[in-house]
Amino acid sequence: MPPEEFRRWGHEAVDWIASYLRDVGEYPVSPSLRPGDLLRALPSTPPESGEAFADVLADYRDLIVPAVNHWNHPAFFGFFPSTGSAPGILGEMLAAALNVNTMVWTSSPAGTELEQLTTDWLRQLVGLPEGFEGVINDTASSSSLYALAAARERHVPEAREQGLGAAPRCRIYASEQAHSSIDKAAITLGLGRAGVRHVPADEEFRMDVGALRAAVREDLGKGVRPVAVVATLGTTSTASMDPADTVADVAEEHGIWLHVDATYAGPAAALLERRHLFQGWERADSVVINPHKWLFTPVDCSLLLCRRPEWLRAAFSLTPEYLRTVEDGGVKNLMDYGVSLGRRFRALKLWFILRYFGVEGVRARLRGHIALAQGLAEQVQREAGWELVAPVHFGTVVMRYAPPGEDPEALDRMNAAILERVNKSGEAFLSRTVLRGRVAIRLAVGNLRSTRAHVERAWELLRAAAREAEGELAA
Amino acid sequence: MPPEEFRRWGHEAVDWIASYLRDVGEYPVSPSLRPGDLLRALPSTPPESGEAFADVLADYRDLIVPAVNHWNHPAFFGFFPSTGSAPGILGEMLAAALNVNTMVWTSSPAGTELEQLTTDWLRQLVGLPEGFEGVINDTASSSSLYALAAARERHVPEAREQGLGAAPRCRIYASEQAHSSIDKAAITLGLGRAGVRHVPADEEFRMDVGALRAAVREDLGKGVRPVAVVATLGTTSTASMDPADTVADVAEEHGIWLHVDATYAGPAAALLERRHLFQGWERADSVVINPHKWLFTPVDCSLLLCRRPEWLRAAFSLTPEYLRTVEDGGVKNLMDYGVSLGRRFRALKLWFILRYFGVEGVRARLRGHIALAQGLAEQVQREAGWELVAPVHFGTVVMRYAPPGEDPEALDRMNAAILERVNKSGEAFLSRTVLRGRVAIRLAVGNLRSTRAHVERAWELLRAAAREAEGELAA
Repeated sequence: MPPEEFRRWGHEAVDWIASYLRDVGEYPVSPSLRPGDLLRALPSTPPESGEAFADVLADYRDLIVPAVNHWNHPAFFGFFPSTGSAPGILGEMLAAALNVNTMVWTSSPAGTELEQLTTDWLRQLVGLPEGFEGVINDTASSSSLYALAAARERHVPEAREQGLGAAPRCRIYASEQAHSSIDKAAITLGLGRAGVRHVPADEEFRMDVGALRAAVREDLGKGVRPVAVVATLGTTSTASMDPADTVADVAEEHGIWLHVDATYAGPAAALLERRHLFQGWERADSVVINPHKWLFTPVDCSLLLCRRPEWLRAAFSLTPEYLRTVEDGGVKNLMDYGVSLGRRFRALKLWFILRYFGVEGVRARLRGHIALAQGLAEQVQREAGWELVAPVHFGTVVMRYAPPGEDPEALDRMNAAILERVNKSGEAFLSRTVLRGRVAIRLAVGNLRSTRAHVERAWELLRAAAREAEGELAA
Repeated sequence: MPPEEFRRWGHEAVDWIASYLRDVGEYPVSPSLRPGDLLRALPSTPPESGEAFADVLADYRDLIVPAVNHWNHPAFFGFFPSTGSAPGILGEMLAAALNVNTMVWTSSPAGTELEQLTTDWLRQLVGLPEGFEGVINDTASSSSLYALAAARERHVPEAREQGLGAAPRCRIYASEQAHSSIDKAAITLGLGRAGVRHVPADEEFRMDVGALRAAVREDLGKGVRPVAVVATLGTTSTASMDPADTVADVAEEHGIWLHVDATYAGPAAALLERRHLFQGWERADSVVINPHKWLFTPVDCSLLLCRRPEWLRAAFSLTPEYLRTVEDGGVKNLMDYGVSLGRRFRALKLWFILRYFGVEGVRARLRGHIALAQGLAEQVQREAGWELVAPVHFGTVVMRYAPPGEDPEALDRMNAAILERVNKSGEAFLSRTVLRGRVAIRLAVGNLRSTRAHVERAWELLRAAAREAEGELAA
C-alpha cells in the first residue's frame, strides 16, 4: 500500500476510532449474535486478487464491529476491566509502524531500554523497593509461568538439563482462590496438577496461612520438595487479598520462592491509603501486575518484576549463534527472561500512558473506581434479598440474590438467569463465579469511561432482572 | 484523553507514520547509540502530573525513533524479515481501539470467529488439507511450546495430573539445525535439554533421516519414550529444508507426534513451484508458520495449525468458574489451546492483509523476494574470495568471505569484522550464524519495501568491507 494510500485510510481509521471512543457507550455492550453467525457471513476462502481497502474497512464496520463484545464500553463490568485508553492506542499505532522485535538489545535498543525504564517506573508507582527488575510479557499466564519456571530452576536445578524424571515430587502452594494460570503453569512445567496444593481460604477468601504452614511441613516430612508459594493479591473471584506478610514468613522460613500474583490489584498499591493491603509483597521473589487490566493499557501488557532475575535467566537463557551480536557482553537481552523470543515494543504504549496520566492522574482514576464500587456495595448491602458475598477492597463487587427461605440450588439458577438477562439487555455486561459452591455475580469497575450512572444503571438492571427471574421461577 | 484530543493526535500520528513508511529507507537502518544512551536521556522516575501529549510525541520523535533498529527499513536484512505493512498497521490500530480479549467466545465472538476464519484462509493459502485447525499465538516459541505440550500430553498422559516425576525418560528429536525454541520448550516442559536429541544434518543442513531412525531405535531399546519429532522447513541459519516426507515416515512408523517448524518458510508453500519442498508436511500433527515473519504482518502473529487439536485441549483446558459462560457448550474457547489466557484480536490485521494483497498479491511479492535472493546468490558464487554457504531456496542468503589460503580462524574474525562494518554503515543491517564451526553472514530478503537496489547496495558494502577488513588484518 503506497504511503499516501495509508495516509488516507489511516485518517479514516482515526476518525472512526475517535467517534467510537466518543460513542462506545451507545453500542450494545455485547452482541446478540449466535455462535457461527459471523463465520457464516464471511467468505470461507481467501480472495485470489487483492481487494480495495475501502471494502475491507466497510466490512470491518458492518460485520466485525457488530460482532464485538465491547471491552471499551463504560458498562463492560465482566471478568476484569481493561481499557484501551487513547494514549495506549496511539502507542500501539506507532509501535506497529516501527514493527521492531525486542528480542535482543541490538534488534531493538529503544524497545529494550524503554522496557527497562517503564517497568521501573511501574515499580516505583506501586511502591516496590529497588532490586526488582522488570520485563513485559503478553499475559499474566505467561508471567506466572516464567516466574514459576525460575522457582523450579532454583529448587530443582537438575531439571534444566535432565528434566524432572529424576527429581523428587515437587509442590507449588497457592490458595484455593488462586488463578487457574497457576495450575496451567504447573501442568506446563511438568509438575502436574498434583504439583499444586490448594490451601484453604478463610471466610474472606484469603489464604489460611496456618494451613499453608501445615501443608509445607507435611510435604517436607514426605520428601516432597517445595518449589514456590503463590500469594494472590486480588483474586479473580472476589479480589480478596492473601496476607502476603505472613505468607512471606512461611516462604522465608523454608527458603521457598515467593511469587505474588497481583495481576489485577497491583496498580492499586499506587494508592498510599491502600498500600497496607499489600504489606509483605516487597519480600516476594517475583510479582506480576497487568497494566492491561487496571492501568488503561490495551491488551496485551503484563509486568513481571523479579528480585532474582538471575534465576529467570538461568531457566531460559539459550543463545544460539544466529542470535549472537557484538553487544552481547554488556546488555540486557530480553529473550533471556522467558519463552517468547519475538517480543513486541509494548513499552511504548505504557510509557505514553504513564506520561499522559502521571502518577496523580492514575491515582485519581483508581480512587474513582474504588468509590464507585464501594457505593454499589453499600447499596447491595441495604437491598432486601441481595447479599454482598465478599468485602470490596477495589473495583470488584461480588453479590448474590438470595432472598431468605429459598432453596440454594434454585437461587443458583436464579442468579444465573439474572446474569443472563442483564447481559442480554445490551446495557451492561457482567460475569459470574462460584464461591463456597454457590453461584455469584461479579461486577468489576475499572474502565476509564465508567461513571456513577453506568454503575447505577447496572444495579437497576440487576434488581429488575431479579424481580423478573423470581416471577418466572415462581410461575 | 477526550475523543477530540485523540482525533488530533491520531491524525498527527497517522501523518508521521505515512511519512515514516515513505522515508524509512533514508534513515540509518540501525542506530549508532551505545547501550544505556537512551536510558540516560530519559527521566528515571515517572512524572507526578500528567504531561501534554505534544511533549510525549516530541520525545517519541526526538529520542525513541533515533534509538530504533528499523525492521521496516528496506535494507534490514538481519535475522528474519518482518514487515509492518500498511494494512497490518491499520489492523493494529483498530484492534487496539476495540481492545477485546479473545479468551473465550463470549468475551470476543468476532475475535474468536475471525481467528477461525483467517487461520483457515492461511491453511488454504499454503495448501495444507482440511482437518488442520488453527490458532494464533504471539510467537513461534509459544506455538512450538504448545505443540510439544500436546505431544507430551499424547505420549505421557499421566504428566498432566502427576507430573513427569514418575514418567520414563522422554525424547524430542530435532535436527542440529533446529531452532533454539525447541530446546527452550523442552526445558519449560520439564523434559530438560537432554530431552532433545539433535540429529545430524547433511551437507545441505537437512536432517539426516537415517540418523533419526537410528536414534529413535536406540532410545526405544533403552526404554526412552519418544514424544515428538520436529522437522524444520526453513531453518534459522540457512533456511534449509528437512525432508518432511521421510521424517513423517519415521514418525508414523513409531506413532510419534510430528511437529513441523515452518515458522519462516511456511508462506512460500503458497507458491506452487516451491510446494514440493514441503512435501510431507501435510502428514504432520502440528505446523507452525509466522505471518509476522514473511507475510507482512506486524509482530506478533504466529499460526499454529493442529491436526490433533484435541490433544492441545487435553493439555491446556482448565475452565474455572469465573470463566464459565452460557455459551460454553457449543463454541470454541481459544484459551483452551495454550498457556496465555489473555489474547489480543490478532486475526484482524491478518484478515486485512490477506484481503488487501489477495493470494496472487502474496505470491507475487514472495516470488520477488526469492528472485532478489537468488540473484544475489549468483553474484556471491561468481565473486572471487566469497562463497555461498548454503543453497538458496527462499529469501535467505548465507555467505562467507573465504579467500583461499587464509587461516579459518582469521577468516572467522574477518567475517565478523565485515558484518560489523556493514552494520555500522547504517546503510544495511545483516546478521550472522555459525555453520560447521565457522562464522557466516546471513542476508535475509523479505521486507515488502526491499528492491534490487537495496540488495545490490548491501552486496557492494559487503565487498568493500571485505577489502578493508583484509587490509586491516594484513596491516
